[in-house]
Amino acid sequence: MAQENWGRWGAEDEVGAPNLIGRDHVRHAAGLVRTGQVISLAQKISDRLPVPGHRGGVQHFMGRDGGDYAAGAKQPGGFQFAEDTVILPLHLGTHIDALCHAWCGDHLFNGFPGNTVRSTTKALRCGVEKIPPLVTRGVLLDVVKLRGPSGDSIPQSLIEQSARGLGLRDGDAVLIRTGWLEGQDPATGIDFNREPGIDVEAALWLAECGVSIVGADNFAIEALPFPPGTVFPVHQRLIRDYGIPLLEGLVLRELAEAEATEFLFVAMPLPIAGATGSPVAPVAVL
Amino acid sequence: MAQENWGRWGAEDEVGAPNLIGRDHVRHAAGLVRTGQVISLAQKISDRLPVPGHRGGVQHFMGRDGGDYAAGAKQPGGFQFAEDTVILPLHLGTHIDALCHAWCGDHLFNGFPGNTVRSTTKALRCGVEKIPPLVTRGVLLDVVKLRGPSGDSIPQSLIEQSARGLGLRDGDAVLIRTGWLEGQDPATGIDFNREPGIDVEAALWLAECGVSIVGADNFAIEALPFPPGTVFPVHQRLIRDYGIPLLEGLVLRELAEAEATEFLFVAMPLPIAGATGSPVAPVAVL
Amino acid sequence: MAQENWGRWGAEDEVGAPNLIGRDHVRHAAGLVRTGQVISLAQKISDRLPVPGHRGGVQHFMGRDGGDYAAGAKQPGGFQFAEDTVILPLHLGTHIDALCHAWCGDHLFNGFPGNTVRSTTKALRCGVEKIPPLVTRGVLLDVVKLRGPSGDSIPQSLIEQSARGLGLRDGDAVLIRTGWLEGQDPATGIDFNREPGIDVEAALWLAECGVSIVGADNFAIEALPFPPGTVFPVHQRLIRDYGIPLLEGLVLRELAEAEATEFLFVAMPLPIAGATGSPVAPVAVL
Amino acid sequence: MAQENWGRWGAEDEVGAPNLIGRDHVRHAAGLVRTGQVISLAQKISDRLPVPGHRGGVQHFMGRDGGDYAAGAKQPGGFQFAEDTVILPLHLGTHIDALCHAWCGDHLFNGFPGNTVRSTTKALRCGVEKIPPLVTRGVLLDVVKLRGPSGDSIPQSLIEQSARGLGLRDGDAVLIRTGWLEGQDPATGIDFNREPGIDVEAALWLAECGVSIVGADNFAIEALPFPPGTVFPVHQRLIRDYGIPLLEGLVLRELAEAEATEFLFVAMPLPIAGATGSPVAPVAVL
Repeated sequence: MAQENWGRWGAEDEVGAPNLIGRDHVRHAAGLVRTGQVISLAQKISDRLPVPGHRGGVQHFMGRDGGDYAAGAKQPGGFQFAEDTVILPLHLGTHIDALCHAWCGDHLFNGFPGNTVRSTTKALRCGVEKIPPLVTRGVLLDVVKLRGPSGDSIPQSLIEQSARGLGLRDGDAVLIRTGWLEGQDPATGIDFNREPGIDVEAALWLAECGVSIVGADNFAIEALPFPPGTVFPVHQRLIRDYGIPLLEGLVLRELAEAEATEFLFVAMPLPIAGATGSPVAPVAVL
Repeated sequence: MAQENWGRWGAEDEVGAPNLIGRDHVRHAAGLVRTGQVISLAQKISDRLPVPGHRGGVQHFMGRDGGDYAAGAKQPGGFQFAEDTVILPLHLGTHIDALCHAWCGDHLFNGFPGNTVRSTTKALRCGVEKIPPLVTRGVLLDVVKLRGPSGDSIPQSLIEQSARGLGLRDGDAVLIRTGWLEGQDPATGIDFNREPGIDVEAALWLAECGVSIVGADNFAIEALPFPPGTVFPVHQRLIRDYGIPLLEGLVLRELAEAEATEFLFVAMPLPIAGATGSPVAPVAVL
Repeated sequence: MAQENWGRWGAEDEVGAPNLIGRDHVRHAAGLVRTGQVISLAQKISDRLPVPGHRGGVQHFMGRDGGDYAAGAKQPGGFQFAEDTVILPLHLGTHIDALCHAWCGDHLFNGFPGNTVRSTTKALRCGVEKIPPLVTRGVLLDVVKLRGPSGDSIPQSLIEQSARGLGLRDGDAVLIRTGWLEGQDPATGIDFNREPGIDVEAALWLAECGVSIVGADNFAIEALPFPPGTVFPVHQRLIRDYGIPLLEGLVLRELAEAEATEFLFVAMPLPIAGATGSPVAPVAVL
Repeated sequence: MAQENWGRWGAEDEVGAPNLIGRDHVRHAAGLVRTGQVISLAQKISDRLPVPGHRGGVQHFMGRDGGDYAAGAKQPGGFQFAEDTVILPLHLGTHIDALCHAWCGDHLFNGFPGNTVRSTTKALRCGVEKIPPLVTRGVLLDVVKLRGPSGDSIPQSLIEQSARGLGLRDGDAVLIRTGWLEGQDPATGIDFNREPGIDVEAALWLAECGVSIVGADNFAIEALPFPPGTVFPVHQRLIRDYGIPLLEGLVLRELAEAEATEFLFVAMPLPIAGATGSPVAPVAVL
């Protein structure tokens, strides 16, 4: 496969497409703020967050809490406090995929060996801590508005149509409303195996537009089930060949209902050293 | 003690001082962007993050990695991926204290019972998921610039002096550079017991200015050791009485070196249901 | 409710019925060994272990493994090693319930306040580390052999009948084969809500026989659903009133097929300070 | 290096030296019980357990506790309970090393590839769940009694001398009292880098005696620092070449003070699927 963005920002680059967000993009994005409305695009994190079968779930424990004081714990100087710990699989809920998350042919983005990602060292290359804070123009591609709810994959034509008039350009963060998350009911179980995501052609079209990040309101960005003979082809092309981090599990309904099309977009991955992803709580500022 | 902001935003309010960030503040803050430079204020998260004695540390595990493929794991469709899990105590590194984190007299901010924070339910009131994304004017109070490195507590006079000309007002996020973090050397051990933080008078002065959040580059915001007979008095007053979340463990040197004084500040706590805090990766946009 | 064994071994006793295992019982039990066959009564521990809805599951992570070396990790002196960490909820699989696990009326066994079990301190009283290694005569009550597979609760008459000729006495470990675990199919989901366990009368009869521990091959020892108006009545009576630890999730088929009725029984809870239970891997030595 | 026990119990064997414990050994060991005294050889497990620098520590969390009820949690049917979860690194405290824990030359015991131990699969070969419950004759080699407290390595001559008159034979569990654990003071920090363990010659002599397991009261069984140019040479020889699991971190003082030399020894590893070790709570029955 082509490795379109390998070497583009130097042999040692571990940032990838977010390099496309220059200071002028940041200034431009800040200039998009009109009403000052801030919309969170993040799912709540709890042990009720749906978990695909092959992963462990979130666990959340209080190390100290109000019950301790009710039970008679001391309150030196009147002070009472509570604290807690979470066990957090990094690819649940609203999260970003680092460039070391997916690859093929034994090499990560920009040619770093897959062998640099190990149990002991974690990711020596392309870990999530290499992704800078993302402050840029966000663009909403509302596929639900165009075609209504559907479980079908999203082809290039639909993406192009939804992007019409928005002038996609270098550094944009593209957020695709597929309708998947809105259509799931945790009570009856989440269907991770059929998702209305983008197909490879749509992904490549976005990548060639120069977007810095691709997000969506489904679990995998791309369509599931995969085309026969392929496995996560969009991950392979966007992450590994273009160096584009993916932003999965976004909550986009409120943004769509506000009829926002472009806005100041901000997402800050936690700089977890050597991690393959991070929970994020992105916002759109209108 | 006075409970200055109790009831101010209604009996059911769990947001507190961030209520002070109106849409006009957001617009104003966006308008502060001049150069487009984005500065991260977050420490890297890893198992090397310093941990006070009474807390567990970060643990980070790969569930799948490049070593698996090197060892012969299958690559269906050529696809390879890595994923991981972190065990994350919520009050380490750069993090925000939710309003349920600290209290006294059996009541949290706004009068909610401390008993609402339990092992089973987590925080039913004032959990970190109630803090909205924080997008507002940030202001740097550079105490190090004023008095040089020092382990002494920071009195009101010094805070006032460092804020001169900045016109502190409702909704501002105030970031105080105490120099503590810059002065610690993980190799020789971190001293959590002596920190040049603000004293109660300084804290109250900031609270009365109407700030929405108080951050600093130390572990506790406030001075340690505490004045005799008191325990975390600044936490008690700011969090519990004023409803001001605290932002601890900030990295402020780069921001100071850029001579930034006001800027667009963005911090988005992870909406962990019922948690007493959240790791955050705040940014200043200049 | 009566508190039959409170005070029986002194006001400070946290051991309960295992006190009944004297050195003579140990000697007698050792003398029961005939063939030298050792049968494990433990389920395998893995992330596939069935988990009731309200609990988190097992997670198991490698911190270093063979993949690291395949990926190029150094081997100083030729040495290679692997190590790992488990996240282990203490009431899954084959485990023992400590005397602080269940109570009523605000008091644990022997009158210790329930308030001594807290998030910060863990169980100050009756933690699992207070249970001594259990080495005693084991007795198998094979209810399946008597009545065949059934989901019905097990009344006193059935327990008495299955114990006929065995001479139940002080210090015995009684293991009840209900057939529940053998009848579950993880592939189709485990039914935790209907279990053929003992009823309260059966439990009291065993307690009055002086048994030191009651084990079974189901999840709750006792019958589910509970009799109307009661919740875990057998737990309340055996653990809280008699100080009898429960041993849940045993694997008893092999023991039954060996037609063992009495044997040397050994179970050693992990002495986890202040824990409410412990995984165990008990054995029967025939 | 020689691979003395490879193939000895067949090409597919993952049990190793515990195969040497036949039913006659079990019967013989049971026959050693004289007084019925049961001595636990396990350290308490808590977050205060000393942790070498490269490992994470134990974390223990209550998921429900007495504080919840004190704070007002419901008590359906009067029932109250507490439950908890531990995060447990498997090579801390008193634990057993499985045969997949240490190797060299890319092959585990019996020639299984090191590549079978992976992040995704855990240990496909020689995991701790393959170790049967250990019920056999235990023998105490009290080096402290012979030479007093010392940090020096323990040579073959000293081991031979301490074993005099005990008739070491196939299947024995050998427990070596080095004095290390007794000499450590958690308050001032544990020194993991200097340990009075056995040297390679001593280890080989024990292995050739046919022992099924080697345990000690230090952290590494073997002497630290290692002889120049070697890294964990005893681990390599005993685990990888002889298939002898190691039992580390034993508490042996009480056993020594009871002047026990041979006894019924029982240790039951938790059958954690694919794990490289397990916490254990072994006992000696006198």
